Amino acid sequence: MDTKAMEMMFENLKPIYEKMIPFNKYLGIKIDSISTNGVVVRIDMRDDLIGNFAKNILHGGVISTILDFTGGVIAHIHELNEMKNASMDKLAKRLANTGTIDMRIDYIRPGKGSYFLATGHILRLGQRVAVTRTELVNDEGVLIAVGTSTYIVG
Amino acid sequence: MDTKAMEMMFENLKPIYEKMIPFNKYLGIKIDSISTNGVVVRIDMRDDLIGNFAKNILHGGVISTILDFTGGVIAHIHELNEMKNASMDKLAKRLANTGTIDMRIDYIRPGKGSYFLATGHILRLGQRVAVTRTELVNDEGVLIAVGTSTYIVG
Amino acid sequence: MDTKAMEMMFENLKPIYEKMIPFNKYLGIKIDSISTNGVVVRIDMRDDLIGNFAKNILHGGVISTILDFTGGVIAHIHELNEMKNASMDKLAKRLANTGTIDMRIDYIRPGKGSYFLATGHILRLGQRVAVTRTELVNDEGVLIAVGTSTYIVG
Amino acid sequence: MDTKAMEMMFENLKPIYEKMIPFNKYLGIKIDSISTNGVVVRIDMRDDLIGNFAKNILHGGVISTILDFTGGVIAHIHELNEMKNASMDKLAKRLANTGTIDMRIDYIRPGKGSYFLATGHILRLGQRVAVTRTELVNDEGVLIAVGTSTYIVG
Repeated sequence: MDTKAMEMMFENLKPIYEKMIPFNKYLGIKIDSISTNGVVVRIDMRDDLIGNFAKNILHGGVISTILDFTGGVIAHIHELNEMKNASMDKLAKRLANTGTIDMRIDYIRPGKGSYFLATGHILRLGQRVAVTRTELVNDEGVLIAVGTSTYIVG
Repeated sequence: MDTKAMEMMFENLKPIYEKMIPFNKYLGIKIDSISTNGVVVRIDMRDDLIGNFAKNILHGGVISTILDFTGGVIAHIHELNEMKNASMDKLAKRLANTGTIDMRIDYIRPGKGSYFLATGHILRLGQRVAVTRTELVNDEGVLIAVGTSTYIVG
Repeated sequence: MDTKAMEMMFENLKPIYEKMIPFNKYLGIKIDSISTNGVVVRIDMRDDLIGNFAKNILHGGVISTILDFTGGVIAHIHELNEMKNASMDKLAKRLANTGTIDMRIDYIRPGKGSYFLATGHILRLGQRVAVTRTELVNDEGVLIAVGTSTYIVG
Repeated sequence: MDTKAMEMMFENLKPIYEKMIPFNKYLGIKIDSISTNGVVVRIDMRDDLIGNFAKNILHGGVISTILDFTGGVIAHIHELNEMKNASMDKLAKRLANTGTIDMRIDYIRPGKGSYFLATGHILRLGQRVAVTRTELVNDEGVLIAVGTSTYIVG
């Protein structure tokens, strides 16, 4: 696959990530941008996502959901980069086989904000396991939480 | 507080946990039972909570949400047991101050089932920090996931 | 392999665990007992293993070393149980391939004691990954620390 | 304290970290550099620290020991930065009270090298808890492992 084909593939993945995972859709998790270089995942604050009513902050479960997902997409991107010449079938199968083994979330500051953005990077992409570090910031760029997750791949 | 008063207090906490945390309500997280000895938390499967459409399994984010919450309730129960003679105001303030510092989730088996139950126990209740281990099983008692979480208390 | 052969194999593994891993030997980590049902790992307190001189407690690094090792042995035991009829060569290769992917340690109480014992159980043994929970107690049975670790296997 | 006094204090802390923690001394853990901006911790490879004899790699327990320690020193540095005008007694008491609550270690690549360096940064310094992320690289700058740890402070 050349660069343009890769870009197209990522464009095509976007709606899949947003619509084919029912719980992501339910929460309103969106792909802000995705390319061979990385991903920015976004969620907009709304009442249903609040954990502490008095303090009006994002529920920790929303945070762990978005960081787990972000790490998984990062693993996907790196798998796709390594499999540029594989058939679409093989790529699809590989992506479908990714699954979270374990995850650590650190809640750094209360999740205040009108929207939140998650990014991250890969630490390791092996034949069987991928490891990522992720971060969530609010609309002012304040660090809200970080994650480290391990995924089955391949 | 005597045993009966404690029981009543836990009965009163039940609707608070279910209705006052908007995201718990949105997901349909329920307190199956709660007492001075522990808690059973329940969630019923439904389409919105699915992570993998093809495999019809619970989203990892739902699992981390319920295990984080379960650990928090366990910390509460142990704090209440230690503060039996405190005023309602002090108790309420103490509960409101509990917050997750960090959490590890291990996804053991795919989340298949019509409902899921979470339980756990306390590992440590200090003046400043509580640590819990939690487990999620499906309607057949199969272990789906485990959690370890650290909470700020006091 | 029949039960007796399994028992003999575990007896043979004991000195390997104790002598062939230089850092284990350096710290004085011993296999108290090992069988198809599980393992008890032991370490005796001595000055070199102290973390806090004033408080005379075991260093956290010793604790994480022993819990990581204990989880690895538990993974081995379960792999061996599943491979009873494999050749010695295959077994040896499989054991040598086990490696820690990640680990969480929770330090519950200060490590005071004249010796410490570690045990644990398996949460998951897949084709590629094993997950274990472990515990360390002191000579009075007081819980000092717990671990959760993920290993590459196979 | 002015900048020069701070520098002197860090110089004075160096031998304390290296000599007063028996297990650190036993392993040969050294402070390569320390200042108000951060710390570099170093360990030299030697036979006693090997985990896998055949592969000649650093034992995972050495890695978790050094990353736990590095995170603790980072927490100290940030506490000292915030307490510049406190008395020496208060500072000493505060440092002595730091303790690891929990830690996650991710083993990224086999620990091959003649020496290893650990660094890190603070994610959160609260009144009661500090959270750090740390990294270990070998003598060629290759990432060997990362850690995330939570400490009691104050």
